Amino acid sequence: MAGLILHEDRTSGNCYKIRLTAAHVGIELERRNYDVLKGETRSPEFLRDINANGRIPVLQDDDRFLTESNAICFFLANGSELIPDGHYDQADMLRWMFWEQYSHEPNVATLRFWLRSVGLDALADPQRMQISGKREGGLAALDLMDKHLSTRKWFVADKFSLADICLFAYTHVADEANFDLEAYPAIVRWMERIMTMDGHVGLDE
Amino acid sequence: MAGLILHEDRTSGNCYKIRLTAAHVGIELERRNYDVLKGETRSPEFLRDINANGRIPVLQDDDRFLTESNAICFFLANGSELIPDGHYDQADMLRWMFWEQYSHEPNVATLRFWLRSVGLDALADPQRMQISGKREGGLAALDLMDKHLSTRKWFVADKFSLADICLFAYTHVADEANFDLEAYPAIVRWMERIMTMDGHVGLDE
Repeated sequence: MAGLILHEDRTSGNCYKIRLTAAHVGIELERRNYDVLKGETRSPEFLRDINANGRIPVLQDDDRFLTESNAICFFLANGSELIPDGHYDQADMLRWMFWEQYSHEPNVATLRFWLRSVGLDALADPQRMQISGKREGGLAALDLMDKHLSTRKWFVADKFSLADICLFAYTHVADEANFDLEAYPAIVRWMERIMTMDGHVGLDE
Repeated sequence: MAGLILHEDRTSGNCYKIRLTAAHVGIELERRNYDVLKGETRSPEFLRDINANGRIPVLQDDDRFLTESNAICFFLANGSELIPDGHYDQADMLRWMFWEQYSHEPNVATLRFWLRSVGLDALADPQRMQISGKREGGLAALDLMDKHLSTRKWFVADKFSLADICLFAYTHVADEANFDLEAYPAIVRWMERIMTMDGHVGLDE
């Protein structure tokens, strides 16, 4: 896999999980940064050449453009140690990845974006009305993760997999959405395991 | 794969996509029905024995319980013709499945549930405030699908795959959420192709 280009916003956890996957499987990515808040993913050039939806991340492989962060991670990791053997374990890994996009990211990542990037005062009424629901959803997600990790080191099949990477991306910055991670000791230990692994890279790298 | 049990609500598109996958790969599922509206997935027995989250679908394989509809479909279809060959096409299939759960289901399926099952009058204010955003999101999702299908028969790799099944489930009942499917001619032709395939089963079967 040569010449892959990641179109990203460096502050996005969805983009970070792709860089973390690439680091662990040893794939180099050329990085192109766009500032979502400045509308750089809505420019006519971006919409025409990169993604008509105006969304990042996008992985460009020559003339093919792949979207959806967790699908991109799967593409980079396919055939590697990051995907467990066995049909059940593979499905169980995907289960956590779908859960991340449905029950974790729309709560934790959206609150982080609203509070940290957009700012409380700049939110529209329909967004403001969703804050308490998203807070509740985020707490439920962290609670479920902590319970799951209280009896195991990794999410799936007793080994580090894409499920861990995809869940780590927004969990480790959940404090930026005003979640108190210290309340989840199993999550804290799991994050420490990930951050001290060979090949780890941080969100700001 | 013997003795698989699907814990479901028969009216749910997320449960239906699993039955449609199973039908195409020739796997028999024992079906156990729960009425979400009557709180049957929140009973102490369900929470203790099936899913502590109180959500369906759940696929039970002996003492293992798999959640997340699209992950369950992947489990049933792994190694079959429903998953294309090649790392890029597999990722592209997952891209549409993640997109379905992030950009289609929370709009089209949620509106269908609110309008058809809960009822407009019974909605809470934070839900009511989200209707126009979900309407807009649903229209954008159907528009993207129609554009994609205007130049191809199937979503990925020129063949019928899990991406088609997972997107079909809630699209073909989008009229129950007051979306006008006639406005999307490529979607209508694609749905007709799916509904006339050998092995097809309907939502009500």
